[in-house]
Amino acid sequence: MLLHSIIEVREQIKEWKKQGLTIGLVPTMGALHNGHKSLIEKSVEKCDKTVVSVFVNPIQFCPGEDLDKYPRTLDADNELCDKAGVDIVFAPTPKEMYGEGHILSNDFLTYVVPPYFYTDKLCGKSRVGHFDGVCTVVNKLFNIVQPDYAFFGKKDMQQLIILKKMVNDLNIPLEIIPCPIVREDNGLALSSRNKYLTEKGKENALALSKLLFNIKVCYNKGITDTSALSETAYSFLNENHSLEYLEFRDKDTLEEKKIADNNTVVFIAARVENVRLIDNIELN
Amino acid sequence: MLLHSIIEVREQIKEWKKQGLTIGLVPTMGALHNGHKSLIEKSVEKCDKTVVSVFVNPIQFCPGEDLDKYPRTLDADNELCDKAGVDIVFAPTPKEMYGEGHILSNDFLTYVVPPYFYTDKLCGKSRVGHFDGVCTVVNKLFNIVQPDYAFFGKKDMQQLIILKKMVNDLNIPLEIIPCPIVREDNGLALSSRNKYLTEKGKENALALSKLLFNIKVCYNKGITDTSALSETAYSFLNENHSLEYLEFRDKDTLEEKKIADNNTVVFIAARVENVRLIDNIELN
Repeated sequence: MLLHSIIEVREQIKEWKKQGLTIGLVPTMGALHNGHKSLIEKSVEKCDKTVVSVFVNPIQFCPGEDLDKYPRTLDADNELCDKAGVDIVFAPTPKEMYGEGHILSNDFLTYVVPPYFYTDKLCGKSRVGHFDGVCTVVNKLFNIVQPDYAFFGKKDMQQLIILKKMVNDLNIPLEIIPCPIVREDNGLALSSRNKYLTEKGKENALALSKLLFNIKVCYNKGITDTSALSETAYSFLNENHSLEYLEFRDKDTLEEKKIADNNTVVFIAARVENVRLIDNIELN
Repeated sequence: MLLHSIIEVREQIKEWKKQGLTIGLVPTMGALHNGHKSLIEKSVEKCDKTVVSVFVNPIQFCPGEDLDKYPRTLDADNELCDKAGVDIVFAPTPKEMYGEGHILSNDFLTYVVPPYFYTDKLCGKSRVGHFDGVCTVVNKLFNIVQPDYAFFGKKDMQQLIILKKMVNDLNIPLEIIPCPIVREDNGLALSSRNKYLTEKGKENALALSKLLFNIKVCYNKGITDTSALSETAYSFLNENHSLEYLEFRDKDTLEEKKIADNNTVVFIAARVENVRLIDNIELN
Protein backbone atom coordinates (compact mmCIF):
# COMPACT_ATOMS: atom_id res chain seq x y z
CA MET A 1 0.00 0.00 0.00
CA LEU A 2 1.56 3.26 -1.19
CA LEU A 3 0.67 6.19 1.06
CA HIS A 4 1.70 9.83 0.74
CA SER A 5 0.10 11.48 3.76
CA ILE A 6 0.99 11.33 7.44
CA ILE A 7 -2.64 11.10 8.48
CA GLU A 8 -3.26 7.96 6.38
CA VAL A 9 -0.20 6.28 7.87
CA ARG A 10 -1.29 7.21 11.41
CA GLU A 11 -4.74 5.72 10.86
CA GLN A 12 -3.35 2.42 9.67
CA ILE A 13 -0.79 2.30 12.50
CA LYS A 14 -3.51 3.00 15.06
CA GLU A 15 -5.51 0.05 13.74
CA TRP A 16 -2.46 -2.24 13.94
CA LYS A 17 -1.59 -1.09 17.46
CA LYS A 18 -5.15 -1.81 18.56
CA GLN A 19 -4.67 -5.36 17.27
CA GLY A 20 -1.42 -5.66 19.24
CA LEU A 21 0.70 -6.14 16.11
CA THR A 22 4.44 -5.34 16.08
CA ILE A 23 5.66 -2.79 13.56
CA GLY A 24 9.01 -2.57 11.78
CA LEU A 25 10.24 0.60 10.07
CA VAL A 26 12.87 0.77 7.34
CA PRO A 27 13.66 4.43 6.64
CA THR A 28 15.16 4.98 3.18
CA MET A 29 15.76 7.69 0.60
CA GLY A 30 14.52 5.31 -2.12
CA ALA A 31 16.60 4.15 -5.11
CA LEU A 32 16.33 0.81 -3.35
CA HIS A 33 19.01 -1.83 -3.96
CA ASN A 34 19.79 -5.20 -2.43
CA GLY A 35 21.19 -3.51 0.66
CA HIS A 36 17.80 -1.98 1.40
CA LYS A 37 16.17 -5.26 0.40
CA SER A 38 18.08 -7.09 3.12
CA LEU A 39 16.81 -4.59 5.73
CA ILE A 40 13.27 -5.00 4.44
CA GLU A 41 13.48 -8.79 4.52
CA LYS A 42 14.75 -8.68 8.09
CA SER A 43 11.83 -6.48 9.13
CA VAL A 44 9.23 -8.61 7.32
CA GLU A 45 10.65 -11.66 9.05
CA LYS A 46 10.78 -10.09 12.53
CA CYS A 47 7.65 -7.92 12.63
CA ASP A 48 3.94 -8.40 12.00
CA LYS A 49 3.83 -5.30 9.81
CA THR A 50 6.56 -3.48 7.90
CA VAL A 51 6.63 0.16 6.84
CA VAL A 52 9.25 1.40 4.37
CA SER A 53 9.61 5.17 4.11
CA VAL A 54 10.91 6.59 0.85
CA PHE A 55 11.87 10.22 1.30
CA VAL A 56 14.81 12.18 -0.09
CA ASN A 57 15.18 14.40 2.96
CA PRO A 58 16.23 17.91 1.89
CA ILE A 59 17.50 18.96 5.33
CA GLN A 60 20.24 16.31 5.40
CA PHE A 61 21.84 17.57 2.19
CA CYS A 62 24.44 20.29 2.49
CA PRO A 63 24.78 23.17 0.00
CA GLY A 64 26.43 21.89 -3.18
CA GLU A 65 25.46 18.26 -2.54
CA ASP A 66 23.39 16.08 -4.86
CA LEU A 67 19.85 16.79 -3.57
CA ASP A 68 18.44 17.58 -7.02
CA LYS A 69 20.13 14.78 -8.90
CA TYR A 70 19.75 12.15 -6.16
CA PRO A 71 18.12 9.15 -7.92
CA ARG A 72 14.33 8.95 -7.53
CA THR A 73 12.76 5.65 -8.62
CA LEU A 74 9.49 5.40 -6.69
CA ASP A 75 7.72 2.99 -9.08
CA ALA A 76 10.56 0.48 -8.93
CA ASP A 77 10.94 0.99 -5.18
CA ASN A 78 7.26 0.36 -4.62
CA GLU A 79 7.39 -2.79 -6.71
CA LEU A 80 10.41 -4.12 -4.80
CA CYS A 81 8.58 -3.46 -1.52
CA ASP A 82 5.40 -5.12 -2.73
CA LYS A 83 7.27 -8.26 -3.71
CA ALA A 84 9.11 -8.32 -0.38
CA GLY A 85 5.85 -8.24 1.59
CA VAL A 86 5.97 -4.65 2.80
CA ASP A 87 2.64 -3.42 4.20
CA ILE A 88 3.07 0.34 3.76
CA VAL A 89 5.38 2.31 1.50
CA PHE A 90 5.27 5.85 2.91
CA ALA A 91 6.44 8.36 0.32
CA PRO A 92 5.65 11.89 1.51
CA THR A 93 6.50 15.13 -0.27
CA PRO A 94 8.85 17.63 1.42
CA LYS A 95 5.78 19.81 1.98
CA GLU A 96 4.00 16.96 3.78
CA MET A 97 7.00 16.47 6.05
CA TYR A 98 7.97 20.09 6.68
CA GLY A 99 4.69 21.94 6.25
CA GLU A 100 3.11 24.62 4.18
CA GLY A 101 5.80 27.25 4.62
CA HIS A 102 8.37 24.61 3.67
CA ILE A 103 10.92 26.53 5.69
CA LEU A 104 13.81 24.23 6.45
CA SER A 105 16.30 26.35 8.39
CA ASN A 106 16.75 26.05 12.13
CA ASP A 107 15.31 29.56 12.38
CA PHE A 108 11.84 28.09 11.96
CA LEU A 109 12.10 24.33 12.45
CA THR A 110 12.67 22.29 15.62
CA TYR A 111 15.77 20.15 15.11
CA VAL A 112 17.04 17.04 16.84
CA VAL A 113 20.76 17.66 17.22
CA PRO A 114 23.11 14.77 17.99
CA PRO A 115 26.13 15.45 20.25
CA TYR A 116 29.06 17.35 18.74
CA PHE A 117 31.50 14.65 19.79
CA TYR A 118 29.71 12.27 17.41
CA THR A 119 29.27 14.68 14.52
CA ASP A 120 32.50 16.69 14.36
CA LYS A 121 34.40 13.79 12.78
CA LEU A 122 34.31 11.37 9.81
CA CYS A 123 31.44 12.31 7.47
CA GLY A 124 30.23 15.04 9.84
CA LYS A 125 33.42 17.00 9.26
CA SER A 126 32.72 17.66 5.58
CA ARG A 127 28.94 17.37 5.77
CA VAL A 128 28.16 20.06 8.36
CA GLY A 129 24.59 19.77 9.63
CA HIS A 130 24.03 16.47 7.81
CA PHE A 131 23.42 14.42 10.94
CA ASP A 132 21.13 17.09 12.41
CA GLY A 133 18.97 16.61 9.32
CA VAL A 134 19.16 12.82 9.62
CA CYS A 135 18.22 12.76 13.32
CA THR A 136 15.39 15.23 12.78
CA VAL A 137 13.76 13.31 9.94
CA VAL A 138 14.26 9.92 11.59
CA ASN A 139 12.78 11.28 14.82
CA LYS A 140 9.77 12.50 12.82
CA LEU A 141 9.40 9.12 11.12
CA PHE A 142 9.61 7.38 14.51
CA ASN A 143 6.80 9.60 15.80
CA ILE A 144 4.65 9.03 12.70
CA VAL A 145 5.10 5.25 12.49
CA GLN A 146 5.76 4.43 16.19
CA PRO A 147 7.62 1.25 15.28
CA ASP A 148 8.77 -1.43 17.72
CA TYR A 149 11.89 -1.97 15.61
CA ALA A 150 13.76 0.24 13.15
CA PHE A 151 16.26 -1.24 10.70
CA PHE A 152 19.43 0.55 9.60
CA GLY A 153 22.39 -0.67 7.56
CA LYS A 154 25.93 -0.76 8.88
CA LYS A 155 27.03 0.81 5.60
CA ASP A 156 26.22 4.17 7.18
CA MET A 157 27.95 3.19 10.41
CA GLN A 158 28.40 6.71 11.81
CA GLN A 159 24.71 7.37 11.16
CA LEU A 160 23.79 4.11 12.89
CA ILE A 161 25.89 4.97 15.95
CA ILE A 162 24.38 8.47 16.12
CA LEU A 163 20.82 7.16 15.79
CA LYS A 164 21.42 4.58 18.54
CA LYS A 165 22.71 7.45 20.70
CA MET A 166 19.58 9.50 19.88
CA VAL A 167 17.26 6.63 20.81
CA ASN A 168 19.13 6.18 24.08
CA ASP A 169 19.42 9.89 24.96
CA LEU A 170 15.78 10.69 24.19
CA ASN A 171 14.34 7.44 25.63
CA ILE A 172 12.63 6.62 22.34
CA PRO A 173 10.55 3.48 22.91
CA LEU A 174 11.91 1.23 20.15
CA GLU A 175 14.88 -0.96 19.30
CA ILE A 176 17.31 -0.22 16.49
CA ILE A 177 18.33 -3.32 14.55
CA PRO A 178 21.71 -2.90 12.82
CA CYS A 179 22.01 -4.89 9.59
CA PRO A 180 25.20 -6.07 7.83
CA ILE A 181 26.65 -4.28 4.80
CA VAL A 182 25.58 -5.92 1.53
CA ARG A 183 28.35 -6.12 -1.08
CA GLU A 184 28.67 -7.07 -4.73
CA ASP A 185 30.50 -10.38 -5.26
CA ASN A 186 33.62 -8.32 -5.93
CA GLY A 187 33.36 -6.60 -2.54
CA LEU A 188 31.91 -3.21 -3.53
CA ALA A 189 29.51 -2.01 -0.84
CA LEU A 190 26.08 -1.35 -2.33
CA SER A 191 25.05 2.31 -2.43
CA SER A 192 22.45 4.31 -4.31
CA ARG A 193 25.29 6.63 -5.29
CA ASN A 194 27.11 3.81 -7.16
CA LYS A 195 24.72 4.68 -10.00
CA TYR A 196 26.80 7.80 -10.61
CA LEU A 197 29.94 5.72 -11.42
CA THR A 198 31.12 4.51 -14.85
CA GLU A 199 32.28 0.89 -15.21
CA LYS A 200 35.86 2.12 -14.84
CA GLY A 201 34.83 4.06 -11.73
CA LYS A 202 33.25 0.99 -10.18
CA GLU A 203 36.51 -0.87 -10.72
CA ASN A 204 38.48 1.89 -9.02
CA ALA A 205 35.93 1.95 -6.19
CA LEU A 206 36.88 -1.63 -5.32
CA ALA A 207 40.04 -0.32 -3.68
CA LEU A 208 37.98 0.81 -0.68
CA SER A 209 36.64 -2.59 0.27
CA LYS A 210 39.90 -4.30 -0.68
CA LEU A 211 41.98 -2.16 1.64
CA LEU A 212 39.46 -2.63 4.47
CA PHE A 213 39.52 -6.41 4.04
CA ASN A 214 43.31 -6.27 4.01
CA ILE A 215 43.38 -4.25 7.24
CA LYS A 216 41.24 -6.92 8.87
CA VAL A 217 43.56 -9.65 7.64
CA CYS A 218 46.54 -7.74 9.11
CA TYR A 219 44.68 -7.18 12.38
CA ASN A 220 43.84 -10.88 12.61
CA LYS A 221 47.55 -11.61 12.10
CA GLY A 222 48.25 -9.54 15.20
CA ILE A 223 48.99 -6.01 13.95
CA THR A 224 47.10 -3.61 16.23
CA ASP A 225 49.00 -0.34 15.79
CA THR A 226 46.61 1.74 13.75
CA SER A 227 49.30 3.80 12.00
CA ALA A 228 50.86 0.55 10.79
CA LEU A 229 47.44 -0.69 9.69
CA SER A 230 46.84 2.61 7.85
CA GLU A 231 50.16 2.20 6.04
CA THR A 232 49.00 -1.14 4.63
CA ALA A 233 46.01 0.66 3.14
CA TYR A 234 47.68 3.42 1.17
CA SER A 235 49.18 1.04 -1.39
CA PHE A 236 45.63 0.30 -2.60
CA LEU A 237 45.02 3.94 -3.49
CA ASN A 238 46.19 5.85 -6.56
CA GLU A 239 45.46 9.03 -8.53
CA ASN A 240 41.89 7.78 -9.15
CA HIS A 241 41.10 8.03 -5.46
CA SER A 242 40.75 11.21 -3.46
CA LEU A 243 40.92 10.03 0.15
CA GLU A 244 38.81 12.03 2.62
CA TYR A 245 39.54 9.96 5.72
CA LEU A 246 40.70 6.56 6.93
CA GLU A 247 40.12 6.29 10.66
CA PHE A 248 39.99 3.75 13.49
CA ARG A 249 37.24 4.45 16.01
CA ASP A 250 35.22 2.82 18.77
CA LYS A 251 32.02 1.14 17.56
CA ASP A 252 29.85 2.85 20.22
CA THR A 253 31.52 6.11 21.25
CA LEU A 254 33.43 6.98 18.04
CA GLU A 255 36.53 7.66 20.13
CA GLU A 256 39.75 7.37 18.16
CA LYS A 257 41.82 4.20 18.60
CA LYS A 258 45.62 4.26 18.54
CA ILE A 259 45.62 0.51 19.16
CA ALA A 260 42.95 -1.50 17.37
CA ASP A 261 40.80 -3.97 19.31
CA ASN A 262 37.62 -5.98 18.81
CA ASN A 263 35.49 -2.88 19.40
CA THR A 264 37.21 -0.99 16.59
CA VAL A 265 35.60 0.00 13.32
CA VAL A 266 37.74 1.16 10.39
CA PHE A 267 36.01 3.98 8.48
CA ILE A 268 36.91 5.20 5.00
CA ALA A 269 35.56 7.92 2.72
CA ALA A 270 37.00 8.69 -0.70
CA ARG A 271 35.94 10.25 -3.97
CA VAL A 272 36.09 8.27 -7.21
CA GLU A 273 35.09 10.16 -10.37
CA ASN A 274 34.07 12.89 -7.90
CA VAL A 275 31.45 10.54 -6.38
CA ARG A 276 31.75 10.44 -2.61
CA LEU A 277 31.90 6.82 -1.42
CA ILE A 278 32.00 5.47 2.13
CA ASP A 279 32.69 2.04 3.55
CA ASN A 280 33.73 0.49 6.86
CA ILE A 281 34.67 -2.75 8.51
CA GLU A 282 34.37 -4.05 12.07
CA LEU A 283 37.51 -5.67 13.48
CA ASN A 284 35.90 -8.47 15.41
CA MET B 1 2.23 5.58 43.22
CA LEU B 2 5.66 7.23 43.55
CA LEU B 3 8.14 5.85 40.98
CA HIS B 4 11.78 6.79 40.48
CA SER B 5 12.86 4.62 37.55
CA ILE B 6 12.04 4.88 33.86
CA ILE B 7 11.62 1.13 33.54
CA GLU B 8 8.92 0.99 36.23
CA VAL B 9 7.00 3.79 34.54
CA ARG B 10 7.29 2.10 31.15
CA GLU B 11 5.90 -1.18 32.55
CA GLN B 12 2.86 0.50 34.04
CA ILE B 13 2.25 2.54 30.88
CA LYS B 14 2.48 -0.60 28.73
CA GLU B 15 -0.20 -2.23 30.88
CA TRP B 16 -2.50 0.79 30.57
CA LYS B 17 -1.97 1.02 26.80
CA LYS B 18 -2.89 -2.64 26.50
CA GLN B 19 -6.15 -1.84 28.28
CA GLY B 20 -6.80 1.02 25.85
CA LEU B 21 -6.70 3.68 28.59
CA THR B 22 -5.88 7.33 27.81
CA ILE B 23 -2.93 8.87 29.58
CA GLY B 24 -2.38 12.48 30.66
CA LEU B 25 1.04 13.87 31.55
CA VAL B 26 1.70 16.94 33.70
CA PRO B 27 5.45 17.72 33.58
CA THR B 28 6.60 19.78 36.57
CA MET B 29 9.72 20.71 38.49
CA GLY B 30 7.87 20.06 41.75
CA ALA B 31 7.28 22.66 44.47
CA LEU B 32 3.68 22.23 43.41
CA HIS B 33 1.20 25.04 43.98
CA ASN B 34 -2.40 25.68 42.98
CA GLY B 35 -1.28 26.45 39.42
CA HIS B 36 0.10 22.93 39.04
CA LYS B 37 -2.96 21.61 40.88
CA SER B 38 -5.24 23.10 38.22
CA LEU B 39 -3.26 21.28 35.49
CA ILE B 40 -3.45 18.04 37.44
CA GLU B 41 -7.19 18.37 37.99
CA LYS B 42 -7.72 18.98 34.29
CA SER B 43 -5.74 15.85 33.43
CA VAL B 44 -7.52 13.69 36.02
CA GLU B 45 -10.82 14.89 34.63
CA LYS B 46 -9.91 14.36 30.95
CA CYS B 47 -7.80 11.17 31.03
CA ASP B 48 -8.18 7.66 32.39
CA LYS B 49 -4.73 7.83 33.99
CA THR B 50 -2.59 10.78 35.03
CA VAL B 51 1.19 10.90 35.39
CA VAL B 52 2.85 13.88 37.10
CA SER B 53 6.60 14.15 36.63
CA VAL B 54 8.61 15.95 39.32
CA PHE B 55 12.10 16.69 38.05
CA VAL B 56 14.28 19.74 38.54
CA ASN B 57 15.91 19.51 35.12
CA PRO B 58 19.56 20.61 35.35
CA ILE B 59 19.98 21.23 31.61
CA GLN B 60 17.37 23.98 31.51
CA PHE B 61 19.18 26.09 34.12
CA CYS B 62 21.81 28.50 32.87
CA PRO B 63 25.08 29.18 34.70
CA GLY B 64 24.40 31.40 37.70
CA GLU B 65 20.72 30.47 37.92
CA ASP B 66 18.98 28.91 40.92
CA LEU B 67 19.44 25.17 40.18
CA ASP B 68 20.83 24.37 43.62
CA LYS B 69 18.41 26.47 45.64
CA TYR B 70 15.34 25.70 43.51
CA PRO B 71 12.68 24.49 46.04
CA ARG B 72 12.42 20.72 46.36
CA THR B 73 9.37 19.47 48.30
CA LEU B 74 8.78 15.92 47.06
CA ASP B 75 6.82 14.67 50.10
CA ALA B 76 4.34 17.53 49.91
CA ASP B 77 4.18 17.23 46.10
CA ASN B 78 3.43 13.53 46.35
CA GLU B 79 0.70 14.14 48.90
CA LEU B 80 -0.93 16.83 46.75
CA CYS B 81 -0.87 14.43 43.77
CA ASP B 82 -2.31 11.56 45.82
CA LYS B 83 -5.22 13.68 46.98
CA ALA B 84 -5.86 14.91 43.44
CA GLY B 85 -6.15 11.36 42.10
CA VAL B 86 -2.82 11.14 40.26
CA ASP B 87 -1.87 7.57 39.30
CA ILE B 88 1.92 7.93 38.99
CA VAL B 89 4.26 10.55 40.42
CA PHE B 90 7.47 10.07 38.44
CA ALA B 91 10.42 11.58 40.31
CA PRO B 92 13.68 10.47 38.66
CA THR B 93 17.19 11.50 39.66
CA PRO B 94 19.35 13.43 37.16
CA LYS B 95 21.37 10.23 36.78
CA GLU B 96 18.24 8.26 35.88
CA MET B 97 17.37 10.84 33.22
CA TYR B 98 20.82 11.56 31.80
CA GLY B 99 22.71 8.35 32.44
CA GLU B 100 25.73 7.04 34.26
CA GLY B 101 28.20 9.53 32.87
CA HIS B 102 25.83 12.31 33.82
CA ILE B 103 27.36 14.41 31.08
CA LEU B 104 24.96 17.18 30.24
CA SER B 105 26.71 19.23 27.56
CA ASN B 106 25.74 19.03 23.91
CA ASP B 107 29.14 17.45 23.30
CA PHE B 108 27.76 14.17 24.58
CA LEU B 109 23.98 14.48 24.73
CA THR B 110 21.41 14.55 21.92
CA TYR B 111 19.38 17.75 22.25
CA VAL B 112 16.03 18.80 20.89
CA VAL B 113 16.58 22.37 19.74
CA PRO B 114 13.61 24.65 19.08
CA PRO B 115 13.88 27.19 16.25
CA TYR B 116 16.02 30.28 16.85
CA PHE B 117 13.18 32.58 15.86
CA TYR B 118 11.26 31.34 18.90
CA THR B 119 14.16 31.33 21.37
CA ASP B 120 16.14 34.48 20.57
CA LYS B 121 13.59 36.73 22.29
CA LEU B 122 11.75 37.24 25.58
CA CYS B 123 13.10 34.79 28.20
CA GLY B 124 15.34 33.09 25.66
CA LYS B 125 17.38 36.26 25.28
CA SER B 126 18.69 36.19 28.85
CA ARG B 127 18.36 32.43 29.41
CA VAL B 128 20.55 31.13 26.58
CA GLY B 129 20.02 27.39 26.02
CA HIS B 130 17.10 27.29 28.48
CA PHE B 131 14.51 26.21 25.92
CA ASP B 132 16.88 23.61 24.43
CA GLY B 133 16.95 22.04 27.89
CA VAL B 134 13.18 22.30 28.24
CA CYS B 135 12.45 20.74 24.84
CA THR B 136 14.97 17.96 25.43
CA VAL B 137 13.58 16.92 28.80
CA VAL B 138 9.96 17.24 27.72
CA ASN B 139 10.71 15.17 24.62
CA LYS B 140 12.26 12.51 26.89
CA LEU B 141 9.23 12.57 29.20
CA PHE B 142 6.93 12.24 26.19
CA ASN B 143 8.87 9.17 25.05
CA ILE B 144 8.86 7.63 28.52
CA VAL B 145 5.17 8.24 29.32
CA GLN B 146 3.71 8.26 25.76
CA PRO B 147 0.75 10.36 26.85
CA ASP B 148 -2.32 11.16 24.77
CA TYR B 149 -2.47 14.62 26.35
CA ALA B 150 0.15 16.81 28.01
CA PHE B 151 -0.87 19.77 30.19
CA PHE B 152 1.11 23.01 30.37
CA GLY B 153 0.28 26.30 32.02
CA LYS B 154 -0.03 29.56 30.13
CA LYS B 155 2.08 31.21 32.84
CA ASP B 156 5.12 30.00 30.87
CA MET B 157 3.58 31.16 27.60
CA GLN B 158 6.80 31.23 25.54
CA GLN B 159 7.55 27.68 26.71
CA LEU B 160 4.02 26.60 25.79
CA ILE B 161 4.32 28.10 22.29
CA ILE B 162 7.73 26.46 21.78
CA LEU B 163 6.49 23.06 22.97
CA LYS B 164 3.48 23.26 20.64
CA LYS B 165 5.91 24.04 17.83
CA MET B 166 8.06 21.03 18.82
CA VAL B 167 5.07 18.69 18.84
CA ASN B 168 4.05 19.96 15.42
CA ASP B 169 7.53 19.97 13.85
CA LEU B 170 8.46 16.50 15.12
CA ASN B 171 5.01 14.94 14.57
CA ILE B 172 4.78 13.86 18.20
CA PRO B 173 1.58 11.83 18.56
CA LEU B 174 -0.13 13.73 21.39
CA GLU B 175 -2.11 16.88 22.06
CA ILE B 176 -0.90 19.73 24.22
CA ILE B 177 -3.60 21.20 26.45
CA PRO B 178 -2.86 24.82 27.45
CA CYS B 179 -4.24 25.74 30.88
CA PRO B 180 -5.08 29.24 32.21
CA ILE B 181 -2.78 31.12 34.56
CA VAL B 182 -3.81 30.70 38.20
CA ARG B 183 -3.52 33.90 40.28
CA GLU B 184 -3.81 34.89 43.91
CA ASP B 185 -6.95 36.88 44.68
CA ASN B 186 -4.81 40.01 44.40
CA GLY B 187 -3.73 39.10 40.87
CA LEU B 188 -0.22 37.74 41.50
CA ALA B 189 0.48 34.84 39.11
CA LEU B 190 1.40 31.70 41.05
CA SER B 191 5.01 30.61 40.67
CA SER B 192 7.31 28.32 42.63
CA ARG B 193 9.77 31.21 42.67
CA ASN B 194 7.33 33.41 44.64
CA LYS B 195 8.71 31.54 47.67
CA TYR B 196 11.89 33.58 47.32
CA LEU B 197 9.98 36.86 47.91
CA THR B 198 9.41 38.67 51.21
CA GLU B 199 5.93 40.00 52.00
CA LYS B 200 7.06 43.42 50.80
CA GLY B 201 8.41 41.81 47.63
CA LYS B 202 5.10 40.08 46.94
CA GLU B 203 3.39 43.44 47.23
CA ASN B 204 5.79 44.99 44.74
CA ALA B 205 5.36 41.99 42.45
CA LEU B 206 1.67 42.90 42.07
CA ALA B 207 2.69 45.67 39.68
CA LEU B 208 3.26 43.08 36.94
CA SER B 209 -0.28 41.69 36.87
CA LYS B 210 -1.77 45.13 37.50
CA LEU B 211 -0.06 46.68 34.51
CA LEU B 212 -1.05 43.74 32.29
CA PHE B 213 -4.69 44.01 33.36
CA ASN B 214 -4.54 47.75 32.70
CA ILE B 215 -3.11 47.17 29.20
CA LYS B 216 -6.04 44.88 28.48
CA VAL B 217 -8.51 47.49 29.72
CA CYS B 218 -6.89 50.08 27.44
CA TYR B 219 -6.92 47.64 24.49
CA ASN B 220 -10.60 46.92 25.09
CA LYS B 221 -11.19 50.68 25.03
CA GLY B 222 -9.75 50.76 21.52
CA ILE B 223 -6.06 51.58 22.00
CA THR B 224 -4.11 49.24 19.71
CA ASP B 225 -0.81 51.07 19.21
CA THR B 226 1.61 48.99 21.27
CA SER B 227 3.96 51.89 22.11
CA ALA B 228 0.98 53.75 23.56
CA LEU B 229 -0.05 50.61 25.47
CA SER B 230 3.52 50.23 26.77
CA GLU B 231 3.45 53.82 28.01
CA THR B 232 0.41 53.04 30.17
CA ALA B 233 2.45 50.30 31.84
CA TYR B 234 5.53 52.20 32.94
CA SER B 235 3.63 54.21 35.59
CA PHE B 236 3.11 50.96 37.54
CA LEU B 237 6.86 50.39 37.86
CA ASN B 238 9.29 52.02 40.28
CA GLU B 239 12.76 51.54 41.77
CA ASN B 240 11.63 48.16 43.24
CA HIS B 241 11.22 46.71 39.74
CA SER B 242 13.98 45.93 37.33
CA LEU B 243 12.18 45.49 33.99
CA GLU B 244 13.70 42.92 31.63
CA TYR B 245 11.12 43.17 28.86
CA LEU B 246 7.55 44.23 28.09
CA GLU B 247 6.61 43.02 24.62
CA PHE B 248 3.61 42.46 22.37
CA ARG B 249 3.84 39.30 20.29
CA ASP B 250 1.74 36.87 18.26
CA LYS B 251 0.29 33.98 20.30
CA ASP B 252 1.50 31.32 17.81
CA THR B 253 4.51 32.67 15.95
CA LEU B 254 5.96 35.08 18.55
CA GLU B 255 6.26 37.75 15.85
CA GLU B 256 6.31 41.28 17.23
CA LYS B 257 3.14 43.34 16.97
CA LYS B 258 3.23 47.08 16.36
CA ILE B 259 -0.58 47.11 16.40
CA ALA B 260 -2.24 44.86 18.97
CA ASP B 261 -5.03 42.50 17.93
CA ASN B 262 -6.93 39.53 19.35
CA ASN B 263 -3.98 37.21 18.61
CA THR B 264 -1.61 39.34 20.68
CA VAL B 265 -0.04 38.30 23.97
CA VAL B 266 1.62 40.88 26.22
CA PHE B 267 4.74 39.43 27.87
CA ILE B 268 6.54 40.87 30.87
CA ALA B 269 9.63 39.84 32.85
CA ALA B 270 11.02 41.84 35.75
CA ARG B 271 13.11 41.32 38.85
CA VAL B 272 11.76 42.11 42.29
CA GLU B 273 14.19 41.61 45.21
CA ASN B 274 16.41 40.07 42.52
CA VAL B 275 13.84 37.30 41.92
CA ARG B 276 13.05 36.97 38.24
CA LEU B 277 9.28 37.00 37.69
CA ILE B 278 7.32 36.54 34.48
CA ASP B 279 3.69 37.08 33.58
CA ASN B 280 1.58 37.58 30.47
CA ILE B 281 -1.91 38.33 29.28
CA GLU B 282 -3.83 37.45 26.11
CA LEU B 283 -5.66 40.35 24.47
CA ASN B 284 -8.79 38.53 23.37
